[in-house]
Amino acid sequence: MSKPKVFEKPTGVKDYLPEAAAKLRAIETKVLQCMEGWGYREIITPTLEFYDTVGVASSTEDRKLFKLLDRNGTTLVMRSDVTAPIARVVSSLLKEQPFPIRLSYRANVFRAFEAEAGRDAEFFQTGLELVGDASSESDAEVIALAIASLQAAGVEKFKIALGHVGFLTGLFNETLQERAEAQQALKECLLNRDHVGYRDTIKSLGLSEEVERELSGILRLRGGQEICAQAREVARDPLAQQSIAHLCEVWDVLEAYGVSEHVLIDLTMIGDFSYYTGMTFEGYAADLGFPVCSGGRYDNLLTQFGRPAPATGFALKTNRILEAVSHQRVERPGAVLIVYTAARRGEAFKKAQALRLQGDFMVETRLLAGEAQRVEAARTAQGAFTVNGAAYNDVIEFV
Amino acid sequence: MSKPKVFEKPTGVKDYLPEAAAKLRAIETKVLQCMEGWGYREIITPTLEFYDTVGVASSTEDRKLFKLLDRNGTTLVMRSDVTAPIARVVSSLLKEQPFPIRLSYRANVFRAFEAEAGRDAEFFQTGLELVGDASSESDAEVIALAIASLQAAGVEKFKIALGHVGFLTGLFNETLQERAEAQQALKECLLNRDHVGYRDTIKSLGLSEEVERELSGILRLRGGQEICAQAREVARDPLAQQSIAHLCEVWDVLEAYGVSEHVLIDLTMIGDFSYYTGMTFEGYAADLGFPVCSGGRYDNLLTQFGRPAPATGFALKTNRILEAVSHQRVERPGAVLIVYTAARRGEAFKKAQALRLQGDFMVETRLLAGEAQRVEAARTAQGAFTVNGAAYNDVIEFV
Repeated sequence: MSKPKVFEKPTGVKDYLPEAAAKLRAIETKVLQCMEGWGYREIITPTLEFYDTVGVASSTEDRKLFKLLDRNGTTLVMRSDVTAPIARVVSSLLKEQPFPIRLSYRANVFRAFEAEAGRDAEFFQTGLELVGDASSESDAEVIALAIASLQAAGVEKFKIALGHVGFLTGLFNETLQERAEAQQALKECLLNRDHVGYRDTIKSLGLSEEVERELSGILRLRGGQEICAQAREVARDPLAQQSIAHLCEVWDVLEAYGVSEHVLIDLTMIGDFSYYTGMTFEGYAADLGFPVCSGGRYDNLLTQFGRPAPATGFALKTNRILEAVSHQRVERPGAVLIVYTAARRGEAFKKAQALRLQGDFMVETRLLAGEAQRVEAARTAQGAFTVNGAAYNDVIEFV
Repeated sequence: MSKPKVFEKPTGVKDYLPEAAAKLRAIETKVLQCMEGWGYREIITPTLEFYDTVGVASSTEDRKLFKLLDRNGTTLVMRSDVTAPIARVVSSLLKEQPFPIRLSYRANVFRAFEAEAGRDAEFFQTGLELVGDASSESDAEVIALAIASLQAAGVEKFKIALGHVGFLTGLFNETLQERAEAQQALKECLLNRDHVGYRDTIKSLGLSEEVERELSGILRLRGGQEICAQAREVARDPLAQQSIAHLCEVWDVLEAYGVSEHVLIDLTMIGDFSYYTGMTFEGYAADLGFPVCSGGRYDNLLTQFGRPAPATGFALKTNRILEAVSHQRVERPGAVLIVYTAARRGEAFKKAQALRLQGDFMVETRLLAGEAQRVEAARTAQGAFTVNGAAYNDVIEFV
């Protein structure tokens, strides 16, 4: 292949210029502050982990992991999420801390997507984990906090789609017993939200009319609490029934939080992650074709790290939220340029320092080459100044 | 080799638990706010870069770079600093922006140190670059801002050691002309602050007594502005003389900033980085045996990215500063536990929400299994509560 050009970056990574960086950091800060209000404290885990521990435990497909070798020949991965690293920490450094444990994080994560898919290889997540509580209360807590986090991030219109892994598993076990391939094909369709493919697959399976109707019917199971009642009629399997009962409980708690208006039960939803074991959810912002957050219950992960415990959590996709709020303006401090001659340098620096201490100015200073030189400041129509191509709210001279 | 245990991390990387993470983030935030006051705006560059562009241009030795291959077989590196990536951005996305350009960053960087050395493989930097200004004024600006940043980070006692690459180069060219190996050996000694080795090497070179005295004499060139006058006498080489004149100018500007008390001229200092071309500096905190910041002028780097320009900057070693301020306490919001029965869930959530909106509480909520259950809260001697092993400032019951 040809050598990359000097200005090129690897596929799927980005530079965030000051405007975008300020917005991204503001989202992270506001969301983490919101999470702290609910008792979640930030932790920082490393970018590199062992493949055999966190890499294998993570929900990311093996081929999507960025791998490298350390000096001893051991395979490392660049973290593809922060859930597995937190499971490691909860089971090691925090193993004496009693449950429930509430932790939050902001981190960049890495997934080696196909270049042609045009997807990010490095992206930003702001998320949390609630470890050691199996109750519907804790599922509702993380959903309510996902809603509060999206609001804190400035996302104005969004919906949380709420499903349960157990409902589909139960329904498929009931209707497609021992037909693992068919189950898998149908799940793939649902994962890709390919409803046409889902219906076609059903037709191709040679099922009874009743079962066909049952399986197609779930595509309509999207809505408010009334969906629970309908779902109970569709799937008689005990696991499916249990799952629905659990969602009903979660819904009740969400109503007590006063946030159920943001939630849509969607029983066709399959979490991205193979390791979800209970409720799963995704957040969709108006006008964006991709989820801005996703989460769910993963009761099996901690076992892999030697401290079995139920857990639930979610991650906001920080850089996607950036797109959702891209029209919003970020407050910036006023830009001031202080120009000075060598003879008045001390005065200029004192003035600069005084303005900086006030806290709402960005103050640049610039030496003029000689007493006779003047800065060529053009006052624009907006009352601001343009100096050498850069804009300032004010120019102060010590000459 | 044996498989890593589930709780293990790769060599040289760390977990930051909530207490440490809060301090680290507070340092980053305060330092970036300080830098913004001086006109520096944060940018974010990717963790992965091409080896042939940023990897080669970076100051890090090749063997210390973390390398991996992308899907096309192109070699990538995990960034080992943010200076080279910023040079890439200034020469590409920002190529129309007039100089001077002021940019700041907070980032984790990666260096594959030998495992036995026990050094970090991933560490945190908070830094800035001032691109497009060759003046002693701009060198002084970044030194003054390094001092302000260390103060903002809470480092109480520190010294900035200030040197100049040109002084030693000039002196060695004058005294050890065409003896590249001898020059290299002496520079290695100075880099490692090995003064005994430096003196021994001089003795081994078979030099005249006068030259020996000259070369040994620089070990005493540490102090305030008076060092400049002494250094002028030691090295007659034009480059050395120019370098000293430049440092004198920088010193004058530092005096105008009122910060020269924090600065020590140290002409034996050699920057860690091969690419420094002018003044270099390092910051040392009291009681810590390693620098907490380092920086200098690098006028050749931008040329490699196609937009030749002088530049100067520095990076604070954020995780080392964390050690320097480890005794300081971080303000934490008060922890409140609200326990409730299902019947009073709505009231409990309202109370939690009201406290969270006040902004200075971490409020956890917990359902009691039945009306008869009470939370077993033990009031400690300090007036706080211990519930199930966790400490709270207050426990509120809705039962």
